[in-house]
Amino acid sequence: MQPPPAFPGDPLEAVDTPALLVDLDAFERNLDRMAAETTARGLRLRPHAKTHKSAEVGKAQIARGAVGLCCQKVSEAEALADGGIGDLLVTNQVAGARKLARLAALARRVRLGVCVDDAGNLAELAKAAVEANAQIDVLVEIDVGAGRCGLRAPEAVVPLAQRIAASSHLRFAGLQAYNGTAQHLRRPEDRQAAIAAAAVITRQALAALAAAGLRCETVGGAGTGTYAYEMAEGLWTELQPGSYCFMDADYAANGAPPAYEQSLTVLATVMSAPEAGFAVCDAGHKACAIDSGLPRLASHPDVALTGASDEHGNIALPAGLTLAVGDRLQLIPGHIDPTVNLHDWYVCHRGGTVEAVWPVTARGAVF
Amino acid sequence: MQPPPAFPGDPLEAVDTPALLVDLDAFERNLDRMAAETTARGLRLRPHAKTHKSAEVGKAQIARGAVGLCCQKVSEAEALADGGIGDLLVTNQVAGARKLARLAALARRVRLGVCVDDAGNLAELAKAAVEANAQIDVLVEIDVGAGRCGLRAPEAVVPLAQRIAASSHLRFAGLQAYNGTAQHLRRPEDRQAAIAAAAVITRQALAALAAAGLRCETVGGAGTGTYAYEMAEGLWTELQPGSYCFMDADYAANGAPPAYEQSLTVLATVMSAPEAGFAVCDAGHKACAIDSGLPRLASHPDVALTGASDEHGNIALPAGLTLAVGDRLQLIPGHIDPTVNLHDWYVCHRGGTVEAVWPVTARGAVF
Repeated sequence: MQPPPAFPGDPLEAVDTPALLVDLDAFERNLDRMAAETTARGLRLRPHAKTHKSAEVGKAQIARGAVGLCCQKVSEAEALADGGIGDLLVTNQVAGARKLARLAALARRVRLGVCVDDAGNLAELAKAAVEANAQIDVLVEIDVGAGRCGLRAPEAVVPLAQRIAASSHLRFAGLQAYNGTAQHLRRPEDRQAAIAAAAVITRQALAALAAAGLRCETVGGAGTGTYAYEMAEGLWTELQPGSYCFMDADYAANGAPPAYEQSLTVLATVMSAPEAGFAVCDAGHKACAIDSGLPRLASHPDVALTGASDEHGNIALPAGLTLAVGDRLQLIPGHIDPTVNLHDWYVCHRGGTVEAVWPVTARGAVF
Repeated sequence: MQPPPAFPGDPLEAVDTPALLVDLDAFERNLDRMAAETTARGLRLRPHAKTHKSAEVGKAQIARGAVGLCCQKVSEAEALADGGIGDLLVTNQVAGARKLARLAALARRVRLGVCVDDAGNLAELAKAAVEANAQIDVLVEIDVGAGRCGLRAPEAVVPLAQRIAASSHLRFAGLQAYNGTAQHLRRPEDRQAAIAAAAVITRQALAALAAAGLRCETVGGAGTGTYAYEMAEGLWTELQPGSYCFMDADYAANGAPPAYEQSLTVLATVMSAPEAGFAVCDAGHKACAIDSGLPRLASHPDVALTGASDEHGNIALPAGLTLAVGDRLQLIPGHIDPTVNLHDWYVCHRGGTVEAVWPVTARGAVF
């Protein structure tokens, strides 16, 4: 683990680069806004920690009414539990005896849920829970349009739910119905249509469960790009947005929801300016993920880096912008989640001064 | 830092996933082959540690005749020095007073070189060296075709070299002449032509230095995709390939140099197989970088993942391949360097058994 790139009290100018910068005012407004739209209206909010991987961010969300956190990996859940989060849902399948044993051990010290979409995997999960004498909440994941994990046929939910309900150490907690692809559709009407289609599938699954006499306590899903549509459908009982705390260039390109501000940037330093109109900064692939495009300049959000390699970010300078060696710039990542995972620390600032340095608690927690 | 995904003596089947797997036999053949082609012929080899970030790999390279290691970042050099590497070249510009102070401090405990392409940056470097009372070797970087860092005009080398030579705590060590772009040109003849063009520029710079009476001890450069061409040119005195130790799908697509074997894979587990002909594994963007394309199946190198998200890798199965939940597969990353940087550990195996677990010493060393 690298030492922190700054310490509380440092001026922003002293922060070593590349570093994750969190604008605390914008970050807190984002958290307040989501709380006002969800928990303040009586809805359950379980923000996704795959975005931030931070116990500090999670505690700030829970302090505003969130019921707990989502995560994607057992090791992520372990790290967040170590950091003081007591209610965690792994919104993913967990395969393999070693990892299932870890999951079951964790369920003895926090409230824990997990997703399944396979009878064989469920049998292994049930065995691990018995061996650890742990109680685990289980959601059946259904595919609501993303074509990734999840049961393809809504009626297939019932047999799996019945097996869960019949397991001594598992509890059938409901459905996981998340459409990740829909978050990144550019037009709001396309996102709305995708969630309407997801609702049709979810209703079919709920009807099948009701016909079988199985109570469905939770319907989980929704992300930053669509949660308003899930809320409007009235089916989802637990909203799981992640990116709203920080935002990124991909969400900005969606044009909505505009209420959330870019609160996180990657601070970089120009290390070479070898010809007019061109500069190279010290943030490349190892500081900023590019799976959703190259990062943009916070000072000129219409300008993206023109290229990146492992440790270099190339910038063809727009008219009116000059950069010299040593100049600093803030980059808006294309995709926040894998970018955060590249760093060990958040440098949190307010009014030009570093106020806090938070570890990325679950950085590298891929297991 | 995550706990290791396996321990020495474990069977391969027990390794937790996703994990970096190193096939030690193939890895050692790669190292032996490069040594036979370079150091055994009297050439200086300084492998690039930006690929492996590992003191263990570096020691294995040095044991076979390498003179030291290259790295890209001061923090990488610090981590490798802590790991026992005593001769390091930062093949990059270092900007900012804080980082230059770290560089100078490091130069008091290992032999250290760095690149410059800017007079202002050089003045700051000279000041940091004086303040630390450290001696630093300095290479002038010239742009030999990649259009990234480096002086654009070969004749601009002389004034910068003179300033270095006139600095009490710096030594003009030569030229850095690396064309990174050339490594990834698909056709061998295009790579050869790119290095021929780089040689023209390098010769111009050498002539200018000679005319000014400046001795150029080192000409550094070359990567895994082109080092044979730099060797043939006879100008380069220090070869700096990195990827040859592990290789990746991008180099495989180049078709050359075929002598080096894919010795590193990302081991993954199928966590969902929700419909015929389709599976989802537990390695996504946070386990395998995609800047050079989606990873390929080691068992079917012509088949790439069909999609990836942060924690998921999607596979449309080719005819004849079936995968069930819990099945394991090895992925060949598109680009090895940023993939290695996502992991804390190498799991090194031979004959189906884990023989060693090495830390990724400089993982996350972006500063």
